[in-house]
Amino acid sequence: MKISMHALSHGVFKKALSQLLHVMEKGVANAQARGFDVSVLVNSRLAPDMLPFLRQVQLTSDFAKNSMARLAGVDPPKFEDVETTMDELVARVKKTLEYIDSVESAALEGSETRHIVIKLRDRTVEFPGLVFLQTWAIPNFFFHHVTAYNLLRHNGVDIGKRDFLGG
Amino acid sequence: MKISMHALSHGVFKKALSQLLHVMEKGVANAQARGFDVSVLVNSRLAPDMLPFLRQVQLTSDFAKNSMARLAGVDPPKFEDVETTMDELVARVKKTLEYIDSVESAALEGSETRHIVIKLRDRTVEFPGLVFLQTWAIPNFFFHHVTAYNLLRHNGVDIGKRDFLGG
Repeated sequence: MKISMHALSHGVFKKALSQLLHVMEKGVANAQARGFDVSVLVNSRLAPDMLPFLRQVQLTSDFAKNSMARLAGVDPPKFEDVETTMDELVARVKKTLEYIDSVESAALEGSETRHIVIKLRDRTVEFPGLVFLQTWAIPNFFFHHVTAYNLLRHNGVDIGKRDFLGG
Repeated sequence: MKISMHALSHGVFKKALSQLLHVMEKGVANAQARGFDVSVLVNSRLAPDMLPFLRQVQLTSDFAKNSMARLAGVDPPKFEDVETTMDELVARVKKTLEYIDSVESAALEGSETRHIVIKLRDRTVEFPGLVFLQTWAIPNFFFHHVTAYNLLRHNGVDIGKRDFLGG
């Protein structure tokens, strides 16, 4: 059985983004049931100097779409960070799923050795594709994804690990 | 370049557990600097019905060691959940690192197709090794690891994403 870079990236991101949509829906239903505006969840933070739910979702989306694009050797599509509501965030995650589904498996063939360069504010990081996926893309993706989950959980939304993991 | 199951599991867990030790050390230093007992962090929760930091660290350890063992086709070592202090949790993470380092790369050869069966309280889940790693081991591992990080961050420990990711 060949281990493909497509399965290692798309397989992880697709399932996790689908579960993110699921917990977001539960957040919306919970706000309605408890009678508060869902924007409270959208703007909630775990610490005053930490990014709010809104940005955690945008960054989860970014690490999925940008990582798939980089492994495929194409420019990542730019999604402007214009969302302000839960509905808009849901649309952003759906658009991310559409993008990652559009990247063909064949485009990632051999990407384990592709030289990936990422320019950050204050430094540049470079890796072969497999190391990029393992030590950059997946940890960063889950960092923001789990934080988005934790923000809903901290605010009393009725979710548990099974909602995060899926069936 | 061959993508090895050992690199995909050990490579992810080793780096992340090393960073977990690093943020735990920062938690200890922060408690000392702010003059409170570090046990407050050890017992902190993000929600009253959510597991405390102590259990998040034990479970991060479990998903690393058990997943490596299952992929190698051996019984996971049983670590009794007896820790109550930050020092004991640090020792638990170090013991986990020693265990995962002891699993030889060759033992994971071909484990992408190994049939993995996990008995949960109320159901049994089964996967080929690669699907187990992607959809079970890694998401579960990061779920508890990022939550442990978020608990420290929520309580004002001076850590950021770079402490989580490492260099």
